[in-house]
Amino acid sequence: MTKFMDVHHGMTGLTGDQLKETHEADLAIQDQEGVVFEHAWADPESGTVYCLSEAPDAGAVQRIHERAGHPADEIHCVSLAI
Amino acid sequence: MTKFMDVHHGMTGLTGDQLKETHEADLAIQDQEGVVFEHAWADPESGTVYCLSEAPDAGAVQRIHERAGHPADEIHCVSLAI
Repeated sequence: MTKFMDVHHGMTGLTGDQLKETHEADLAIQDQEGVVFEHAWADPESGTVYCLSEAPDAGAVQRIHERAGHPADEIHCVSLAI
Repeated sequence: MTKFMDVHHGMTGLTGDQLKETHEADLAIQDQEGVVFEHAWADPESGTVYCLSEAPDAGAVQRIHERAGHPADEIHCVSLAI
């Protein structure tokens, strides 16, 4: 399992409830690909959302986000963490 | 105090020791601006580093990063978090 940071753009005006709903949509199906979504942070002003996960590979992260209806714009393998 | 996610680009090939050193350089002076750096994640392949902090404002985060020798390329106020 490796850590990934994925980024979504264009989510300007996102509310706390919407972030919770989209995160829960990921959690509901993450087992299909062996992904564990750990955290999500959102900047509603610029419309940027960051998700931290552990997953077998970047493709697994993207497949869950796609099936949940919100594909990521970038997915980075963050092999170093403090 | 508000949460911020800042992003550094162009750090291709960063090692674990280098990430630790740069993070510790921030920690050593963060009190000057009332910033608390919580985590850092790096993707050495794309050269992207993400730092999560709590701070009075984005300027405080940037001033610490600048004084420590590694200004951020983007700083987002992540007012929503899960």
